[in-house]
Amino acid sequence: MARWQPDAPGRLAAAALDLFEENGYENTTVIEIAERAGLTKSTFFRHFPDKREVLFGGGTVAGLLVEGIASAPPGAGPLDTVAEALDALGRTFFTADHRDFSRRRQAVLNAHTELREREALKRIGLTASMIEALRHRGVPDLTARVAAQLGTLTWEIAFDQWIDAGNGEGFGPLARQALAEVRAAGAAG
Amino acid sequence: MARWQPDAPGRLAAAALDLFEENGYENTTVIEIAERAGLTKSTFFRHFPDKREVLFGGGTVAGLLVEGIASAPPGAGPLDTVAEALDALGRTFFTADHRDFSRRRQAVLNAHTELREREALKRIGLTASMIEALRHRGVPDLTARVAAQLGTLTWEIAFDQWIDAGNGEGFGPLARQALAEVRAAGAAG
Repeated sequence: MARWQPDAPGRLAAAALDLFEENGYENTTVIEIAERAGLTKSTFFRHFPDKREVLFGGGTVAGLLVEGIASAPPGAGPLDTVAEALDALGRTFFTADHRDFSRRRQAVLNAHTELREREALKRIGLTASMIEALRHRGVPDLTARVAAQLGTLTWEIAFDQWIDAGNGEGFGPLARQALAEVRAAGAAG
Repeated sequence: MARWQPDAPGRLAAAALDLFEENGYENTTVIEIAERAGLTKSTFFRHFPDKREVLFGGGTVAGLLVEGIASAPPGAGPLDTVAEALDALGRTFFTADHRDFSRRRQAVLNAHTELREREALKRIGLTASMIEALRHRGVPDLTARVAAQLGTLTWEIAFDQWIDAGNGEGFGPLARQALAEVRAAGAAG
């Protein structure tokens, strides 16, 4: 019995996205997703508790953010630290070859309330991870909460621009630009 | 046939909270909630699409925030405008006699993933309402997004303090204090 599957979560997510687009989220079953990915139902459930979770694969993004925050230069301020983390995300996760998938995935999420809810909760979890990583660097709690909140907003802005088909720029530079704007807007508030 | 019920949503929410505490969220049915409130199942469904929605009654909070933002003094900056809205909320919704219910409700939400998800989505909706109301006052889009995001964070901090049993202070003053701290933390970022 082969327990290990090369990137099974990624194959399952890709298969699920195809099927959600073709037949709709509601009309797609876990068995169909597994079949399309060339895997079994039990492999699916080894990676995801249910269908709703298949497009929110693992803690990759949270891990990258936490790593990026931890490895920012010691003297960096809270928002610059968050900027480093978003840069790291752009280099290793929101890469050019991941853009088409990200755009299609977002369109499916936006179209389904229960997926948007799951996304909202995941985002709160990511913000919490950033807060924790900032506090670990010695940033005071409230400053960490504000920086993480503004970082999440920066991410949302940069992500929307990045998945936009007409825009060839990378996620990292877009996030830098968005953060500068968020900072200026915050100062104006 | 009496179609109109005096504060039926409020009675249903109070009955639901009692039952969720007594028997658990999963073990409570819509029929039981309606019966405990002295109402019928069809009255329940006239006000809420499902059980999950019963603790998120109506758009009261969104309406109060939007009203508070619209009626802030013309010269007020974006964050001061948000502060006015939180004040308004404290005067008319998060009042002393509502505190016990709010604390009990929050404990139930915190204990159930699907309620926390619903709450997360509602919060995004509230932030969006604030952004829209700020833009309506002529605040530039990005400034409005930053102010609304910091306003939501301020709310969360103040709300957690307000429902804390040991703290007799009103929501409005707590929000003012929290906003000052958020502002200072933002400036430090």
